[in-house]
Amino acid sequence: MSGIFGAYSTTGKPVLEEAYLGLYALQHRGQESAGIAWPNNGRVNTSRGVGLLHNALDQQKLAKIAASSAIAHVSCSPLDLSQPQNILPLSANYARGLIALSHDGCITNLSTLTKQLEQCGSIFHSTTDSEAILHLMAQKAHMQPLDALVDSLRKLEGSSSLLVLLENALVVSRDPWGFKPLCIGEKDGTYYAASESCALDIVGAKLIRDINPGEIVIINEKGIKCLNIPNQNHSIRHMKCSFEYVYTARPDSIIDGRSVYEARKEMGKRLARKSPCPNADIAAGMPDSGTIAGIGYAEEAKTPFELAVVRNRYVGRTFIQPTQKVRELGVKIKLNPISEVFKDKKAVIIDDSIVRGTTARSIISMIRNSGASEVHLRVASPPVLHACKYGIDSRKEGSLAAVRMSVQELCENINADSLSYLTEEDLVAAISLPVNQLCTACFTGKFLPDDNSGQGA
Amino acid sequence: MSGIFGAYSTTGKPVLEEAYLGLYALQHRGQESAGIAWPNNGRVNTSRGVGLLHNALDQQKLAKIAASSAIAHVSCSPLDLSQPQNILPLSANYARGLIALSHDGCITNLSTLTKQLEQCGSIFHSTTDSEAILHLMAQKAHMQPLDALVDSLRKLEGSSSLLVLLENALVVSRDPWGFKPLCIGEKDGTYYAASESCALDIVGAKLIRDINPGEIVIINEKGIKCLNIPNQNHSIRHMKCSFEYVYTARPDSIIDGRSVYEARKEMGKRLARKSPCPNADIAAGMPDSGTIAGIGYAEEAKTPFELAVVRNRYVGRTFIQPTQKVRELGVKIKLNPISEVFKDKKAVIIDDSIVRGTTARSIISMIRNSGASEVHLRVASPPVLHACKYGIDSRKEGSLAAVRMSVQELCENINADSLSYLTEEDLVAAISLPVNQLCTACFTGKFLPDDNSGQGA
Amino acid sequence: MSGIFGAYSTTGKPVLEEAYLGLYALQHRGQESAGIAWPNNGRVNTSRGVGLLHNALDQQKLAKIAASSAIAHVSCSPLDLSQPQNILPLSANYARGLIALSHDGCITNLSTLTKQLEQCGSIFHSTTDSEAILHLMAQKAHMQPLDALVDSLRKLEGSSSLLVLLENALVVSRDPWGFKPLCIGEKDGTYYAASESCALDIVGAKLIRDINPGEIVIINEKGIKCLNIPNQNHSIRHMKCSFEYVYTARPDSIIDGRSVYEARKEMGKRLARKSPCPNADIAAGMPDSGTIAGIGYAEEAKTPFELAVVRNRYVGRTFIQPTQKVRELGVKIKLNPISEVFKDKKAVIIDDSIVRGTTARSIISMIRNSGASEVHLRVASPPVLHACKYGIDSRKEGSLAAVRMSVQELCENINADSLSYLTEEDLVAAISLPVNQLCTACFTGKFLPDDNSGQGA
Amino acid sequence: MSGIFGAYSTTGKPVLEEAYLGLYALQHRGQESAGIAWPNNGRVNTSRGVGLLHNALDQQKLAKIAASSAIAHVSCSPLDLSQPQNILPLSANYARGLIALSHDGCITNLSTLTKQLEQCGSIFHSTTDSEAILHLMAQKAHMQPLDALVDSLRKLEGSSSLLVLLENALVVSRDPWGFKPLCIGEKDGTYYAASESCALDIVGAKLIRDINPGEIVIINEKGIKCLNIPNQNHSIRHMKCSFEYVYTARPDSIIDGRSVYEARKEMGKRLARKSPCPNADIAAGMPDSGTIAGIGYAEEAKTPFELAVVRNRYVGRTFIQPTQKVRELGVKIKLNPISEVFKDKKAVIIDDSIVRGTTARSIISMIRNSGASEVHLRVASPPVLHACKYGIDSRKEGSLAAVRMSVQELCENINADSLSYLTEEDLVAAISLPVNQLCTACFTGKFLPDDNSGQGA
Repeated sequence: MSGIFGAYSTTGKPVLEEAYLGLYALQHRGQESAGIAWPNNGRVNTSRGVGLLHNALDQQKLAKIAASSAIAHVSCSPLDLSQPQNILPLSANYARGLIALSHDGCITNLSTLTKQLEQCGSIFHSTTDSEAILHLMAQKAHMQPLDALVDSLRKLEGSSSLLVLLENALVVSRDPWGFKPLCIGEKDGTYYAASESCALDIVGAKLIRDINPGEIVIINEKGIKCLNIPNQNHSIRHMKCSFEYVYTARPDSIIDGRSVYEARKEMGKRLARKSPCPNADIAAGMPDSGTIAGIGYAEEAKTPFELAVVRNRYVGRTFIQPTQKVRELGVKIKLNPISEVFKDKKAVIIDDSIVRGTTARSIISMIRNSGASEVHLRVASPPVLHACKYGIDSRKEGSLAAVRMSVQELCENINADSLSYLTEEDLVAAISLPVNQLCTACFTGKFLPDDNSGQGA
Repeated sequence: MSGIFGAYSTTGKPVLEEAYLGLYALQHRGQESAGIAWPNNGRVNTSRGVGLLHNALDQQKLAKIAASSAIAHVSCSPLDLSQPQNILPLSANYARGLIALSHDGCITNLSTLTKQLEQCGSIFHSTTDSEAILHLMAQKAHMQPLDALVDSLRKLEGSSSLLVLLENALVVSRDPWGFKPLCIGEKDGTYYAASESCALDIVGAKLIRDINPGEIVIINEKGIKCLNIPNQNHSIRHMKCSFEYVYTARPDSIIDGRSVYEARKEMGKRLARKSPCPNADIAAGMPDSGTIAGIGYAEEAKTPFELAVVRNRYVGRTFIQPTQKVRELGVKIKLNPISEVFKDKKAVIIDDSIVRGTTARSIISMIRNSGASEVHLRVASPPVLHACKYGIDSRKEGSLAAVRMSVQELCENINADSLSYLTEEDLVAAISLPVNQLCTACFTGKFLPDDNSGQGA
Repeated sequence: MSGIFGAYSTTGKPVLEEAYLGLYALQHRGQESAGIAWPNNGRVNTSRGVGLLHNALDQQKLAKIAASSAIAHVSCSPLDLSQPQNILPLSANYARGLIALSHDGCITNLSTLTKQLEQCGSIFHSTTDSEAILHLMAQKAHMQPLDALVDSLRKLEGSSSLLVLLENALVVSRDPWGFKPLCIGEKDGTYYAASESCALDIVGAKLIRDINPGEIVIINEKGIKCLNIPNQNHSIRHMKCSFEYVYTARPDSIIDGRSVYEARKEMGKRLARKSPCPNADIAAGMPDSGTIAGIGYAEEAKTPFELAVVRNRYVGRTFIQPTQKVRELGVKIKLNPISEVFKDKKAVIIDDSIVRGTTARSIISMIRNSGASEVHLRVASPPVLHACKYGIDSRKEGSLAAVRMSVQELCENINADSLSYLTEEDLVAAISLPVNQLCTACFTGKFLPDDNSGQGA
Repeated sequence: MSGIFGAYSTTGKPVLEEAYLGLYALQHRGQESAGIAWPNNGRVNTSRGVGLLHNALDQQKLAKIAASSAIAHVSCSPLDLSQPQNILPLSANYARGLIALSHDGCITNLSTLTKQLEQCGSIFHSTTDSEAILHLMAQKAHMQPLDALVDSLRKLEGSSSLLVLLENALVVSRDPWGFKPLCIGEKDGTYYAASESCALDIVGAKLIRDINPGEIVIINEKGIKCLNIPNQNHSIRHMKCSFEYVYTARPDSIIDGRSVYEARKEMGKRLARKSPCPNADIAAGMPDSGTIAGIGYAEEAKTPFELAVVRNRYVGRTFIQPTQKVRELGVKIKLNPISEVFKDKKAVIIDDSIVRGTTARSIISMIRNSGASEVHLRVASPPVLHACKYGIDSRKEGSLAAVRMSVQELCENINADSLSYLTEEDLVAAISLPVNQLCTACFTGKFLPDDNSGQGA
């Protein structure tokens, strides 16, 4: 998974520091590397590094550079990031000038593309999906860069929300299925593109709209121009990722027109209606991801809402090594239930989803030790039954709790008094996009037909 | 302000990694330095450093050391920490053996003590309050260390929650007024002392009790023994810090018998009764410190509670430099109100306290831009009118919003539709300790009589 | 200028640590970057970095890797080394497998080659000469790697001592003019290639012979095989660099059959015969590079030899910043003449060459201040009058002392009592290679005919 | 062993950068730590660190500080330098103001002094000899600092070349035996004190004279004033270290009136007369320390002098880890004999001294492998038979080659064709100081009478 951000100022204003701030708002989409690319006298410059944003990039140096267009990237890639060529944005200076690209997604026909390109003399320097796009363009040195790009995009299968920086333009495109979110905004003559609208908010830009699946938007000194990826062989069925609403995206983002906060709260409310917990004394979210659904649940169920499990404010800031002692103490290192709140209470706990189930078991045990008389778990999404082929993350199907156990077995395994999930129908209704525009494959297994042979990396 | 932690195993178990974890639970009490001291063959070893815990100390190295007693410290000291001798715990090997000490507090007669000690040959190596205690003991080389310590404690004015490590004992003491919290716990034959009970929770220890004001507890291989600081000239009036309940302490701590979470929620409820906000559509806490009072307020007022201002999860983990651009964008960098929640709503916002007032103004402005029709602010403590002389922090009286403006002026200044505070009576009632045992001097100016000439550092 | 080293074990022994040590012996040929490349399961791995060897590479990590072939490189390149792709060895995995290369030299038709390659789809990632060789090969994906390499070498103009690592072979080649030195050695079934024989000594290998100009040597599991670069259009006139003997190479190296130490001592002796300094009391070398010629001079002239100017042993180890104060104090920071030796003496100082003349002036001034009655300078090579086009260094012609001044003017400028140079004839005779096999272009301007338009980088 | 440097400007000029440069000239006396102390508004500031000068200190920061007096220190102390309080100069702000001190030497009655001071309340923070001097002064808070210092110096046994910085003075003193060198110089109203005169040369100062044994020189705004350490109980017998002339000092220093270079060359000449090597073809010094004696030897013996063993210029700059491979290759990593010079030659090698004998054996073996027909070793000092009690280094007596073997056995052990040493008489004559003013205890065992119980650290 990645977070991508681009900026193009039609009035010549410097944009690199805004790109840094855009990444700051998107840091939750990738903590392992960050990079920025910008044009400099006909060539492309980049600054890229490993780790969180401030480790990877130098904000103050960027603030002093006068580039008026840029693309930027945060990634949680499983690639070998000790090799700097694997850190996006990728860039090159080829026969037709500079090119740089940021890419959120997973190209499912990558190995075929790579072989074809190498036979024509391409040397691959990275192990990223994205480098194939560079070589596809370089092999078309006889075409204008923009034509070469459009021609290249037609060859890609899988998910691709893409920002391409050229000498005089920023190109923004979303694959024909619209797997990954991508939107554009504007402020004072500068155009922005971002994975989520929260990154437009941080720079004070106004959301214009989401990029349509299969659309190419070209931003240059004249403004915005839109194309569609031509001659696409695939029947266009939208596959917008439903897991963005469940977990991935920030609650303050609006994706394809729907507020993520509102969607999550609605998931909680619908969960309360279908899976009530009569006579519960308190309702609490599993920190941190279950809190919003928890508020919705509590409001609908008229159960008092409590911030009853305290998360150490320094988790992620002050690191704890996983020593033997730490493993013995478990989640207690990070989370602490408040005994005064739980003592002799029947508690209903709301989580956003269950992946492996290990954290749920630990927390429920801790809450029982705090004196709760009953602990009921409610999950604000359906059981996760399939690995994602389109780039959410790298979890394996065999590790998924819902694959290994029935709901009843899992309930016993985590030692809950009861366990219920949100239905697929309620999930779709809470997101409130048409069901045939959403990808729910990780819950339902409804992948695109051709993808069965693909790898779910 | 500091967080202090000590451990003494009567069964010879290693305790350094638990000390590290204890500090992790207390990190909110000091982010600028951290240190640990332990005995090693009759001498004292220390590991100390600057910054957050994991920058300052090496957990894995500590985990390998077999010391069965230790004291540890996190500090937000305003001292020059580039001088390592200013980082606590302080330690020395003097004529009677090893000594190390951790100290949360502020000695108000420090300059007098220093002059007397230097005339007798003492060389001060640090600019800490705490070093005077070391020299007071070293000058009594003819006495047993414990006698020398008791004799030394009598000479201190001001606040002193103190851990002293000797060759074969851990000494825990609280000054006669009990300004700063300090408690002890136990697990499997190991005794622990900590600023707050949340640090006992993290190592799985059971809270025994709080140290009494004026009490000295000696932990050694035989167990626990208690003394009182003898011959104290002062009339004993307890002065337990009420600001711990308002802001400083973690909500999952129990201090002097009272749950901080319950106290905060009760502050919110009392605020809702005395300062209602009729017909408000939503109630939200000022992130992060106002959230618990906000839940109490919403529950009492029967107003829907919303997590309506999103705090970037990476604040403090991914650093943003305060450049010109960042100053322009203001708190928006860290916080983002959710427009869908605020749009056309009458909102009541609950904060724990107002110190300078600048953040409140920024957030209210941001909430208005998100479309709120009215923004009312409720503060869950009385106006802060005095600098603290006992070591809460180093804020100057002139910078306090409530000193510079009337409530009405401040309400206009921050552009709220209305502004109300909790009363002192309700604060004391919410904490539910006897009023004559609480220090409310920062709200009321009721300092100890002798302290008028002291410095409020 | 660069130092290159390669190793191929026919018995499967690990060679990476020997490659590190080989670079250690060649460090004088390049202090700005270092790198090593080796094959790993059909792909190429590299370790590369900036600065001296131990900053750039990790000896202990390399020692643990079981690769039985490798190439290695130290460089004093003027390229932007903050871009890691500019650090040699360059490497790629292309359609026909792995390739890596180390290159000492300067390709004089680089810009023409680059344009042709980009039109065919090549993307250049570095600004090195050497990358063109990689793309020349990748564009020939239909040929065997070795054939593609031979075909590529034919297209190069300028100087190229080259090591190419393939999956199962190490290829060693020297351009048809033999500008840069390159030799091979052997020990216990492992073959080595190195810029200078001192790097064979350090690993205990025996020098087999120098590579002939225009020769390609292929080392694989079967041993050694030799080819010539075919169809070379140029008349073969050898151009072996004479400056290697004057300054560049280590005195313990043997280059093209001639001991550098012996050559330098002979330069000193011939200088003493043609340019005597009658009645000199002492002879001393300009530290460090003039010492060996100084010993030869003193021996021939029967003048007592003294190590009369002491060089601070920590020059280069303990860094001195060029502050105003340091500029005032000048070379005194690094060098100190011994007054007891120079006092009232007529001294003759021998240097290897004069480039800018500034150091000579400073040292002569310092020696006079030490009490010398006369200071005569003798230079063990002819005046340097031309910038090198073949990669010795990047000095500009305008900065050369001998271009700006006559010998008499320079003598006055540096305040010597007399100044003489070695003649070209004596230089050639001291090196004792046939005159038509040596490049003396920096002294004489006799460059290859086609090179007039080339760049002297 | 340490190198110490002090500066006091009577005209108010900044001296910190000169102190840095002074240490640069003295780096050979200590590579493990470096520090500088200077007065700042009545208090003492220090900058100290581990490793070579540029790792330990920041020249450019020091250059910006306007202090007109300072003391500085480099040390090769065996103390635990991870404890910064062990890095000299030591400093304190005590009842009578600031004090800092640099100390080259070894206090032989340290443990007695420490016990007395601790009984009076002193807390020791370091494990250095020098801290006792600070506490001796602090315990005399009723006396003027200068009087307290003089009184303190009387109590010290062993070697002590000392620089003491006070608020308005720099005090320079040498113990009554004069073990360690110490001299003063002047330039333009600034006075300097240094372990060796080469450090005066680097800042352009003129050597005034050596400090006399037992002398105290006070430098302040009025200039220089001299005292003697009063009431010294010991009969004054000078014990100036002869090993400074053999090995320790730089050849360009003048110590107690004698040029180190001249002394070394004379050692070589006397060695040639007493221990000739008839019909030797070449003479060479053992790099680096035997070179000057080698020149003297060759000149006297009329044998051609050759720089026949090349030392890698990057030894100490590019680090080599002592892996298994490196141990196998041995000294070859650093040194390379030139075969063309040694082939079929009878060689005489001159070394300054033999301590463990292991290096000699390795080099002789290497020279034989280079083709030498005979290898004769001549040592320009007597056999080292005793560990030093006065701080030269920390070698143990049991490790000394001459203790474990007779000359004949050692000759066989190192595989030399013959081996001879300089006599004590010739050593003294070469140094040309009166024999009763030199310490030759490491050769002869003639220590001071009281020192038998002392530790030779």
